[in-house]
Amino acid sequence: MIHAQDHITKNSARFLNELIDFLRIPSISAAPVFKTDIEKAADFLIRALNNSGMDDVTRFYEGGNPIIYAEKIITPELPTILIYGHYDVQPPDPVELWLSPPFEPTIRDGKIYARGACDDKAQVYIVIKALETLSQLNSFPCNIKVLFEGEEETGSLSLIRFIKKNKPLLKADTLLVCDTSMPSINQPALVCGLRGISYCEVEVTGADKDLHSGMYGGTIINPLLELSKLLAMLKDDEQRITIPGFYDNVKEPNTAIKKLINESIRIEELFPPELSLHISPTNTHTLAEQMTICPTLDINGIWGGYTGAGPKTIIPSCASAKISMRLVPGQDHNKIAALFTSYLKAKAPRQVNVSVKPIAGCNAVYFNPNLNSSIAASRALNRVFGNKPLYLYIGGSIPAVSAIIDTLEAEPLLMGFGLESDNIHSPNESFLLDNFYKGIECVMEFLSEYKKVTAELTV
Amino acid sequence: MIHAQDHITKNSARFLNELIDFLRIPSISAAPVFKTDIEKAADFLIRALNNSGMDDVTRFYEGGNPIIYAEKIITPELPTILIYGHYDVQPPDPVELWLSPPFEPTIRDGKIYARGACDDKAQVYIVIKALETLSQLNSFPCNIKVLFEGEEETGSLSLIRFIKKNKPLLKADTLLVCDTSMPSINQPALVCGLRGISYCEVEVTGADKDLHSGMYGGTIINPLLELSKLLAMLKDDEQRITIPGFYDNVKEPNTAIKKLINESIRIEELFPPELSLHISPTNTHTLAEQMTICPTLDINGIWGGYTGAGPKTIIPSCASAKISMRLVPGQDHNKIAALFTSYLKAKAPRQVNVSVKPIAGCNAVYFNPNLNSSIAASRALNRVFGNKPLYLYIGGSIPAVSAIIDTLEAEPLLMGFGLESDNIHSPNESFLLDNFYKGIECVMEFLSEYKKVTAELTV
Repeated sequence: MIHAQDHITKNSARFLNELIDFLRIPSISAAPVFKTDIEKAADFLIRALNNSGMDDVTRFYEGGNPIIYAEKIITPELPTILIYGHYDVQPPDPVELWLSPPFEPTIRDGKIYARGACDDKAQVYIVIKALETLSQLNSFPCNIKVLFEGEEETGSLSLIRFIKKNKPLLKADTLLVCDTSMPSINQPALVCGLRGISYCEVEVTGADKDLHSGMYGGTIINPLLELSKLLAMLKDDEQRITIPGFYDNVKEPNTAIKKLINESIRIEELFPPELSLHISPTNTHTLAEQMTICPTLDINGIWGGYTGAGPKTIIPSCASAKISMRLVPGQDHNKIAALFTSYLKAKAPRQVNVSVKPIAGCNAVYFNPNLNSSIAASRALNRVFGNKPLYLYIGGSIPAVSAIIDTLEAEPLLMGFGLESDNIHSPNESFLLDNFYKGIECVMEFLSEYKKVTAELTV
Repeated sequence: MIHAQDHITKNSARFLNELIDFLRIPSISAAPVFKTDIEKAADFLIRALNNSGMDDVTRFYEGGNPIIYAEKIITPELPTILIYGHYDVQPPDPVELWLSPPFEPTIRDGKIYARGACDDKAQVYIVIKALETLSQLNSFPCNIKVLFEGEEETGSLSLIRFIKKNKPLLKADTLLVCDTSMPSINQPALVCGLRGISYCEVEVTGADKDLHSGMYGGTIINPLLELSKLLAMLKDDEQRITIPGFYDNVKEPNTAIKKLINESIRIEELFPPELSLHISPTNTHTLAEQMTICPTLDINGIWGGYTGAGPKTIIPSCASAKISMRLVPGQDHNKIAALFTSYLKAKAPRQVNVSVKPIAGCNAVYFNPNLNSSIAASRALNRVFGNKPLYLYIGGSIPAVSAIIDTLEAEPLLMGFGLESDNIHSPNESFLLDNFYKGIECVMEFLSEYKKVTAELTV
């Protein structure tokens, strides 16, 4: 692919400048105040897709942030690849821990630092620049469909509705997702497992107003204390989740997968000494297994009462928390949310009201790595990175992937170019510039190899 | 006191307008951003004291907000009354529950609504207008010393330093405090008991940055869960505080005081049906006793992790809470803060760091109602309100009063004109206009009666 490399090299500065413009947009989906930035990011992608030679670039709405679709259909005989990505990002807080502002992309030591750099803007832009290059060289090996959304970080609710309504439009042989990571700079990976998630907001309400704790202290039940008690009982001393029925349908993966997991995850890199201090005790699974194939429960946020400077003596009227549970094969996210809700309501004292609102959910995704897509990707990655990919089971969740696979019956391929040191969802998120350019090559190589693999099979 | 009433009646509109100007100043001591408003409120009082004919009006600093001192010494033979008040107010949040903006004083149904209306600005202004009237009539019955501070809502730390350094300046026979309430419109009261307080901020810290819960969930200890566990264990199922040693030195008041408490507190008014729903279970003390003579512990605020809209999947680096403990005679606030700190540190798992910062504290105040000051006040209140005062033990704390009594050995007199429906520390704080004018009369009558009572005794 000499021509392709030439094109990438010649245009590398422009590609990077465009990516920087994309990263400047604070397209945070979790907070409604960034709605216009979400639209700006969608506008940006529509222009970029049109400039890359894609056809039928269209913006759809399904009740939330724009969904962007584009395609390049060469001939019906060629295989079709659906490429998914997202342009929304996590909130950047705590902002004070960033070394450079989260929406002023900054290059240091060969990496670009910005919120969304790795998750998922650079990887979305890898796809667009791969398509632009193919278009310039007039050499699309497959038919392409592109599907970008702006609600990945908030549960992909619009996208899930959209794919259910548009099965013929989105029909494809393989779903390519560039939203994952590699174990190290020279070690590419294909992801074969993602955990599911059930994300709920809990509110505990007592009296209808804040009360003076000097007057009512000791007589009126305190929603902050009751919320603390409910949260405290969610895990026992062995860190097992106490929700009745939570583990009932959990399918433990076979020993081959466990072996793969324990060999592929570099614990000493993920848990440097300063982090090892904070490891939670358990004795049924290794750390690598806990990170990937065990269900979890975490409190992600909590708030209530007076949180400003100095003392204020109130019994607050209500207290809230955000809780996410990561799920594994066998667990249904709707059922888990219902079990969680029933448990909290049953355990709360009658003096408070407990409401639970599920705000995101999807089931786990596990698949066989011996698919055409995996074979093609393995060749592409080996060529570009000089190493065959590892097959990974990871702890994160991509609700869109879960929904697309269930609905469209496409072969999944999760080929990502992030690094575990890229601090996704944390301050100082980054993306390796070298992987930006290698990623473009890989996507092009994969499409070319995929055509060959499917041709080999049909011969 | 015909002349006095005339003066008050003739000037009632001006008095109210001045009070409104005072209430407009958001002199919130808990948040440093209001520092200039604190100074504005101090400026306002200095002008008002000068206009009321007081001498030596002076602003002192003891490391925090201004302390204002003024005096009117007639002759050394007369008794001296030290009058204490505070010009700082509680934060107004949650602001959305106010019917009119907290710093735009609004009159409805004979009450003035504003943050600080009852606690303590109208009562401070009662004192100033009583002094102005006495000055106009040239009829001070006693020597007067005035001491106003701006840190009552944050623990009176500057004032406590100031009184320790200025004993001769502040020497007085009686300390008059107008910062309490009456049980009902026609039923005045004198407060004989105040609870102490220990107010602490707790921070639980895990890893040095927020981590992605999809990656680290289930492996790294979650500071929000650990904080919840620590808070949850602070009270047992009978709502008893579990801190070892917490109750060790508690002195139960005698049955006479208990009888007084149970007779004087109108439970049915303080606990209307909508509030009764939220009463916390206990079976060792009546509600009235729990509100006044029992020590308590309340969580006043809690925060940590992501608290914005939508989901964010992090394990936060730290979690915080504000906790206040109300104390009774026998309990030492420094010792209680130390017990609390040791308990939390002992119970926290080794994977997190727990820090506890005491931010306010004072001991309980209990005194004999048969003092000269109480006898004089009883006559004054009976004349103005047509009823003798009840003797009250209340649940709140006034650290300044505790410190002044301990340091200066003045007889205390807590004669306040608030109502329990005045919503202090809550949205829609108010003060009855009628009590503003009656309060002015009462303070004047008290000074006059106090001179008589002390003269009767010396005859």
